Amino acid sequence: MPRNPDRRRLLADAGLRVLAESGARGLTHRAVDTEAGVPAGTASNYFRSRDALLGALGERIMERFAPDAAVVAGLATRPPGRELFVDYLRYIVERTTREPDLTRALIELRLEAARRPGLGDILGGTLRQGYQDDVAFHATTGLPGGAFEIALLHYALDGLLLDMLGASIGADTDPDRVVTAFVDRLIPWTTA
Amino acid sequence: MPRNPDRRRLLADAGLRVLAESGARGLTHRAVDTEAGVPAGTASNYFRSRDALLGALGERIMERFAPDAAVVAGLATRPPGRELFVDYLRYIVERTTREPDLTRALIELRLEAARRPGLGDILGGTLRQGYQDDVAFHATTGLPGGAFEIALLHYALDGLLLDMLGASIGADTDPDRVVTAFVDRLIPWTTA
Repeated sequence: MPRNPDRRRLLADAGLRVLAESGARGLTHRAVDTEAGVPAGTASNYFRSRDALLGALGERIMERFAPDAAVVAGLATRPPGRELFVDYLRYIVERTTREPDLTRALIELRLEAARRPGLGDILGGTLRQGYQDDVAFHATTGLPGGAFEIALLHYALDGLLLDMLGASIGADTDPDRVVTAFVDRLIPWTTA
Repeated sequence: MPRNPDRRRLLADAGLRVLAESGARGLTHRAVDTEAGVPAGTASNYFRSRDALLGALGERIMERFAPDAAVVAGLATRPPGRELFVDYLRYIVERTTREPDLTRALIELRLEAARRPGLGDILGGTLRQGYQDDVAFHATTGLPGGAFEIALLHYALDGLLLDMLGASIGADTDPDRVVTAFVDRLIPWTTA
């Protein structure tokens, strides 16, 4: 099985473009080959099944949403408190809304996983790893809240992103005010 | 334009079954006719475009998620407080997770609306109405929180449902505990 990570990323990025342009029905191994400009059969060599292909797209989305190391280093110099916590979340919203197609694709893949157990295994592994990384990172920040609060924030932000990037309930809330409210209210700040 | 509400519902329910079984690519006016057992052309008479058809499915999902009047009447007899608020939310989670295909379809329609402005108009109208009804209902309950808090709870619950009904971040949280935390923390309870 070929193991060139650059080529794997190139194929996954091509797959994400096909998905955005042609939807799930247009996403085939052959279409990925064409989009990536590689010989026919290449995508099939890297992703042996449709589940593997879809799972690789989910993994690549998470990779592309990874924070910039310089930004994280900058945030890490600041004193732990509400404002810092809000800025971490703002940065998540910034990264995910900057590439709305990717965020929508990730939600669609999560739903599709309910119907495709093979994809569910792969994508579930990727998402679990992401959550565990978040929990581990959070422990280094000195900010209050633990694994449970990180899960609450995940759920809350996912729903906010769905509303921002799809048909909205029309509550006309300012995303920044919503993120601030989530941090203020979901995190057990000791009133000082 | 035909205006038989029973027939419209029958067609929409057939469309939802087609969507669950065959996905968006299988959903055509003709497939809805076949599934509903009605003459060819019927679905096209009721829903003049693909956007109208998809929009009608969204509307029908919201209708099928409507609470049972007897349950709501029972809840309305109870004193307003955290337990009652949690039970209202539990009842939402109960209705939406009992029909996971419908909940997943509604999220997919919301995402699809970002690519189809015609659907966005129809579905946006349905969702806005639902949110405004929620806000108006909430004002009758004597429970704390207003339009902003109802929006926060909408976002938070939507994200929780995505995690419950699709690939999960694997935080292994108890949904009941999550719902309780959302009510406890997102609603401004005056500590009494």
